[in-house]
Amino acid sequence: MNIKIEKLIKQFAKLPRVGTRAASRIVIGLLQDKTGRAEALANALLDAAQTIHPCSTCGVLTDGEICEYCMDSVRQNGQLCIVRDLSDVLVLEKSGVFHGRYHVLGGNLSGVDGITPDDLNIANIAKRLDKENIREIIFALPNTVEGKTTQQYIISSIGNSSIEFSELASGVPLGGDLDYIDDGTLTLAFGGRKKL
Amino acid sequence: MNIKIEKLIKQFAKLPRVGTRAASRIVIGLLQDKTGRAEALANALLDAAQTIHPCSTCGVLTDGEICEYCMDSVRQNGQLCIVRDLSDVLVLEKSGVFHGRYHVLGGNLSGVDGITPDDLNIANIAKRLDKENIREIIFALPNTVEGKTTQQYIISSIGNSSIEFSELASGVPLGGDLDYIDDGTLTLAFGGRKKL
Repeated sequence: MNIKIEKLIKQFAKLPRVGTRAASRIVIGLLQDKTGRAEALANALLDAAQTIHPCSTCGVLTDGEICEYCMDSVRQNGQLCIVRDLSDVLVLEKSGVFHGRYHVLGGNLSGVDGITPDDLNIANIAKRLDKENIREIIFALPNTVEGKTTQQYIISSIGNSSIEFSELASGVPLGGDLDYIDDGTLTLAFGGRKKL
Repeated sequence: MNIKIEKLIKQFAKLPRVGTRAASRIVIGLLQDKTGRAEALANALLDAAQTIHPCSTCGVLTDGEICEYCMDSVRQNGQLCIVRDLSDVLVLEKSGVFHGRYHVLGGNLSGVDGITPDDLNIANIAKRLDKENIREIIFALPNTVEGKTTQQYIISSIGNSSIEFSELASGVPLGGDLDYIDDGTLTLAFGGRKKL
């Protein structure tokens, strides 16, 4: 195979949820297309890479100084929801369950991947607490070891007793059949059982 | 969501085998990456889009005038394998089953998608027959209505009785359990049953 095409396929195959086979189909499809889709995609990506950056307040990706969530005056102040990345914000926004302010970390602490607190948007949280009069911090981080470690680190680094901390409930998902639920989730669901 | 990010996600979601959810994860992952992966990918894609084009002889994507398969003097002449696109060439090369010359159509005839013979690399086949002294044309097109229509069109457009035409055998794949095989394949496998 042509070396340029091979390199390009390897780059696409490194993207999340894209394997070598899909990458090969994507690259060949793009290069075979006669309507200029490959160039259009490359230019859009280049433009985004050069202009998109994290919001200086909350870390949401934006091309302005402040993102649309921070600028939105209709959103409630006082509650801060801490999430891993922009896709979590999009999921929460789609569900319409939260109307407060967001804070995007840009990842989770991870010894394996070498991600330390300095790599994440953590130092900014303390600055926001006073400035925005935050009363409650809601952790909506992944229910994994990394997510919980990050959560504990943030709680201990803030160490402000006047702030209320909470995390999303763990348990059986809606419509979830017990047959298909892992032991860890079942243990959490039992431990957190509700009185009726 | 930021309009630039939204547009980029839509462009990625149009790629084969990438849905909206995967596109969203890809774009956010790329833009969040601090090592410049987004720019590197954009530049590699732009470079490929500007320099890669179909080989003037066989249609394989290349950045030279003639592709590596056509230049390869070790490959046998006389047999021409007609395939839909470069990924089919890669699959055949990986299997090591064919050592002749390739001809890439760049698609299949399709009334639904409005693909006519002029859109495909068909006119070139007739020129190659004399020049390369082709004795056999092997069709390795998809086993679909479009693939078979394209095959029939090419056979009738060549109309040269001295050329031998063949197509890949249809039937039960190796390791294939009859339980999981569709009726069409079973019908073909029965019709083409081999005497033992």
